[in-house]
Amino acid sequence: MTYTLYGSPGTASFCVHWMLIELDVPFTFHALDFEKGEQRAPDYLKLNPTGHVPTLVMDGVAYGEAGALLSLLAERHPATNFAPAPGTPERGLYLQWMFYLADTLMPAFRLFYYPVEGAGPGQEEATKAQAVIRVERVLARADALLSDGRSHLLGNRMTAADFLLGMLARWSRNLPKTAFDWPHLGAYVRRLRAMPSYQQTHRREGLSGWI
Amino acid sequence: MTYTLYGSPGTASFCVHWMLIELDVPFTFHALDFEKGEQRAPDYLKLNPTGHVPTLVMDGVAYGEAGALLSLLAERHPATNFAPAPGTPERGLYLQWMFYLADTLMPAFRLFYYPVEGAGPGQEEATKAQAVIRVERVLARADALLSDGRSHLLGNRMTAADFLLGMLARWSRNLPKTAFDWPHLGAYVRRLRAMPSYQQTHRREGLSGWI
Repeated sequence: MTYTLYGSPGTASFCVHWMLIELDVPFTFHALDFEKGEQRAPDYLKLNPTGHVPTLVMDGVAYGEAGALLSLLAERHPATNFAPAPGTPERGLYLQWMFYLADTLMPAFRLFYYPVEGAGPGQEEATKAQAVIRVERVLARADALLSDGRSHLLGNRMTAADFLLGMLARWSRNLPKTAFDWPHLGAYVRRLRAMPSYQQTHRREGLSGWI
Repeated sequence: MTYTLYGSPGTASFCVHWMLIELDVPFTFHALDFEKGEQRAPDYLKLNPTGHVPTLVMDGVAYGEAGALLSLLAERHPATNFAPAPGTPERGLYLQWMFYLADTLMPAFRLFYYPVEGAGPGQEEATKAQAVIRVERVLARADALLSDGRSHLLGNRMTAADFLLGMLARWSRNLPKTAFDWPHLGAYVRRLRAMPSYQQTHRREGLSGWI
């Protein structure tokens, strides 16, 4: 089994790239040049009609959506225990956070970074201001969950939800309040960033800052 | 095992309500009065700090997020086969659509129905116009998937993704183009609406129109 990941440095493909490195499985990373519009090239749109990243090709089939890809990879490598198995007590909280981060935090960040999509041209600053409110609400909630001393979102071990939040926390670096402005969330992000797989993803994607 | 669902008629709790009825399992439905702000009452916020619906209490624990609750219920009642099992060929497409609908279509509808959240007061119409673009993009993609003659999103049987899309399609009724303006999607929605469980959910929630 080999994986092919299509992505772009620092974007939503980061969490999948990071998990692939942490899983230590063979894969190829195809970086799309967003400035050249490669995410809208006909060949890429055949793989992923949304024109978004990430796309992961496995067993010859292409799938999209970061949350789905993390879930899939975690399931396909169950020894890592990155996805609590169905029927276990952590399963409900795991699914809740996977969806919550994907359907609330990620879209809020999208409007912060692509503010013209909010209310059209001329309203970018107003859109960003509202997006910031929504981002902060989710980060505050994550901080509250972590305030009981747990090391990770669902307890004391890493799950796919941490790959997702660990990536999204990085996106807060350009906001008025970053993840480090919440004490428990800040300590959590420091733990994730210290992982060799995180650092390697950062390096391989040629990212700078925030580490 | 008994379930308690907190929701409000016609909102994001509809798909969970519908699945509970289709599963034919014992449950209680607590309708929150949004006009009275019951979704922000302290007792409800203890169950679901987001102040959103749905919330499902199972085994004494409250969980949120429609996509997560559909996934959980499908897993807890595997005889229905509403969630393709991990490792099956449909699993990837299933997860992709669950996340895609939750993280792209649902937030776009939210901004259409709560447009002040997009770019603040005074920009509601501009926000709605952008939200419509995003909704139509997803509905067009669902229509394309259904154009090969399949009866449901993942093939010829119902999955949790159909409960989600079936509910969201209903929300298109106030948009310039409704789900029925796409031929394959329209036929699909007619099939879902004909299900006795759909009609019963509609009736029990006291909904009118669009059926």
